[in-house]
Amino acid sequence: MKPIKVGLLGLGTVGTGVVRIVEGHQEDLQSQVGLPIVIEKVLVQNKTKSRSISIDPDKLTEDPWDIIRHPDIDVVVEVMGGIAGTKEYIIEALSRGKHVVTANKDLMALHGPEIVAKAKENGCDILYEASVAGGIPILRTLVDGFSSDRITKIMGIVNGTTNYILTKMSQEGASYSDVLKEAQELGYAEADPTSDVEGLDAARKMTILATLGFRTNVSLANVSAKGISQVSKEDILYAKRLGYELKLLGIAERQDDLVSISVQPTMVKQTHPIASVNGVFNAVYVYGDAVGETMFYGAGAGELPTATSIVADLVAVVKNLKLGVSGKQNGVADYKETKLKSDDQISSKYFLLLHVADRAGVLARITQVFAEFEVSLESVLQQPNPNNPDAEIIIITHDASKAAIQKVIDTFGSLDVVYKVKSVYRVEG
Amino acid sequence: MKPIKVGLLGLGTVGTGVVRIVEGHQEDLQSQVGLPIVIEKVLVQNKTKSRSISIDPDKLTEDPWDIIRHPDIDVVVEVMGGIAGTKEYIIEALSRGKHVVTANKDLMALHGPEIVAKAKENGCDILYEASVAGGIPILRTLVDGFSSDRITKIMGIVNGTTNYILTKMSQEGASYSDVLKEAQELGYAEADPTSDVEGLDAARKMTILATLGFRTNVSLANVSAKGISQVSKEDILYAKRLGYELKLLGIAERQDDLVSISVQPTMVKQTHPIASVNGVFNAVYVYGDAVGETMFYGAGAGELPTATSIVADLVAVVKNLKLGVSGKQNGVADYKETKLKSDDQISSKYFLLLHVADRAGVLARITQVFAEFEVSLESVLQQPNPNNPDAEIIIITHDASKAAIQKVIDTFGSLDVVYKVKSVYRVEG
Repeated sequence: MKPIKVGLLGLGTVGTGVVRIVEGHQEDLQSQVGLPIVIEKVLVQNKTKSRSISIDPDKLTEDPWDIIRHPDIDVVVEVMGGIAGTKEYIIEALSRGKHVVTANKDLMALHGPEIVAKAKENGCDILYEASVAGGIPILRTLVDGFSSDRITKIMGIVNGTTNYILTKMSQEGASYSDVLKEAQELGYAEADPTSDVEGLDAARKMTILATLGFRTNVSLANVSAKGISQVSKEDILYAKRLGYELKLLGIAERQDDLVSISVQPTMVKQTHPIASVNGVFNAVYVYGDAVGETMFYGAGAGELPTATSIVADLVAVVKNLKLGVSGKQNGVADYKETKLKSDDQISSKYFLLLHVADRAGVLARITQVFAEFEVSLESVLQQPNPNNPDAEIIIITHDASKAAIQKVIDTFGSLDVVYKVKSVYRVEG
Repeated sequence: MKPIKVGLLGLGTVGTGVVRIVEGHQEDLQSQVGLPIVIEKVLVQNKTKSRSISIDPDKLTEDPWDIIRHPDIDVVVEVMGGIAGTKEYIIEALSRGKHVVTANKDLMALHGPEIVAKAKENGCDILYEASVAGGIPILRTLVDGFSSDRITKIMGIVNGTTNYILTKMSQEGASYSDVLKEAQELGYAEADPTSDVEGLDAARKMTILATLGFRTNVSLANVSAKGISQVSKEDILYAKRLGYELKLLGIAERQDDLVSISVQPTMVKQTHPIASVNGVFNAVYVYGDAVGETMFYGAGAGELPTATSIVADLVAVVKNLKLGVSGKQNGVADYKETKLKSDDQISSKYFLLLHVADRAGVLARITQVFAEFEVSLESVLQQPNPNNPDAEIIIITHDASKAAIQKVIDTFGSLDVVYKVKSVYRVEG
């Protein structure tokens, strides 16, 4: 039987994992698809570099076009990352009738609809399970597993670096900067950690999750993102004392035709299943009208977990090829236009930590501001601040609109008894 | 466009949910499959009974053959339960070229391979996502999501009734019989709870999970099952004190070509993600060679969660029909024969609670028995028994074979210093 020939763009951590799995699980894979899957050509930056896997040097190339234009290659697997150049390769591969499997969240978050349309036009499959939450098969779960349901909320811990940092801060009472330094030394955080710690990586993944979960053409510009670089160990301490863990959550919500998607550090009730997802693990919590609450948990990154998703996509591509239905199941290009909620319509509980003057009547003045903007309060805790002559007030609100909370904060800015709005967090669970 | 016509066998809780979702989400469903899905005929026990949903009386029938032999029905959805009669209907429906979606774990655990073979023979789809863990799309995750990986272990909390009982016993220190009574009053446990509390329901679900996860023809007879009716509140108390929760776990393991599948109350380390799955919720923990640990969590039963899985299967059937690939993706019939591990080859940690004579040398005598059968110990705790003149010894072993532990227990039976082997549990995590 004619084998399926794969061209691999990139032989870094994940690319190496793909080779390992395709070779190590070859027998299992063949028993499922009925024919051999062969890595035919691999794009590398330097052919002579030594590697942790043995690979026929004739299969290596430093020229991507050797793969894109290769007449015998059926499927291109892209694990090189990057946006502009990579997009060109993928579009050209699709134009030549090659199916594409990619792990590239940046590319899919920015150019997903265009790439999917190109795939459709050419009768090709484009699959990208590995782009979100590494080894967790969450994209096919949203598309196939919940095809019958109306998903109304997706909450994700989809960035391992920030979850590692917040877990360490929570468990050891360490400061953000100390844990970041440690994470960089361990290779869990990059030298320039901006994309992870400022929530941009998570925002890209939430773009993809919301698109598939809500069957709506969400673009990255629709996602508001705030990272963890301003989180203090005091914030985490107060969270724990009130029964919460602080997590960087991507939250996508839908109500009728309106959606909102955001990434921000969020206080999550300790009893919520997502609160106990620790370290570099990822989890995606999905709430459906009919199914209620579900959660999917696993490794969010790493050579083999990510490669598992890529090779599962490869198996799907080969099955579709054999069944003659390639390119028939890419729905994204037809999805509805996104209508965003305004800040008046986005509702949640909030946590606020205020530094205030320590004198009579202050609490009354502050709670009056909340009342003025119709924000009702779930709990209020006032205590002396051990380090300062001022007092601390911790407030958790009932559900309130984002706009109302912003007005409350703005008003505090002009109130002489409020020295500082130290922290504001969304609250879930 | 010609609508897809569905015949529904059964209009109990889950059947009602199917009608609600197909009608309530019709627009969403049509946007995915491109044509209407219509419930054409519904089998009920009594046509005149009043119902919580409004349904055209002309669609109701008390004769299953009205549906099985109906010339226009494309898909039969079976939610009536039962084995012998139901099997006949499903086999006949498949013979007539109708696709089948079923939630019937008993039937699939007992006759899965035969039914799947019949579907294949007739070019029909047979899907049964709802048969295991209600709303959690775990079967398609095993088949598609992890197609590239080699799954080596599946642990499941797949019975909501027993998880509810154990959760209550753990959280409130209540006795088994009190909580069972309460669960029966709340409708979480049946009047005859045997199938749930003795682990038989879980065993059927583990048969299905192991079959799909290991791609091996597991039969129900391959699963050893023990239930929770002998669990005492003391057992749970001791478990918690040592940092464990007691859960009824289905455990399927694979090593090379050998498998073992069992259901038993198991001490799970509190830090393991499955330990905090409480109440009627289900969770399936999957360990793959490449992906590492993953877990899938959600409602295990209930009208709408279960119906979600059924209608997702229905969507898959319609997509396959439109793509012309019906019946091409049912792999089970070709799966490998099951080779079971012997008790010598099944290995885990164990917890033992012994009542022993409270005198010098007893602990030495007991630990000598473990040594004799080469079972090494992780921890030993001896304490006076507040209610009796004898002492209690709690032991957690290192990994030991099931056969060796049985020999240890047998030897204790003939030892005069051991009054009673009070409890023996497998330990995980």
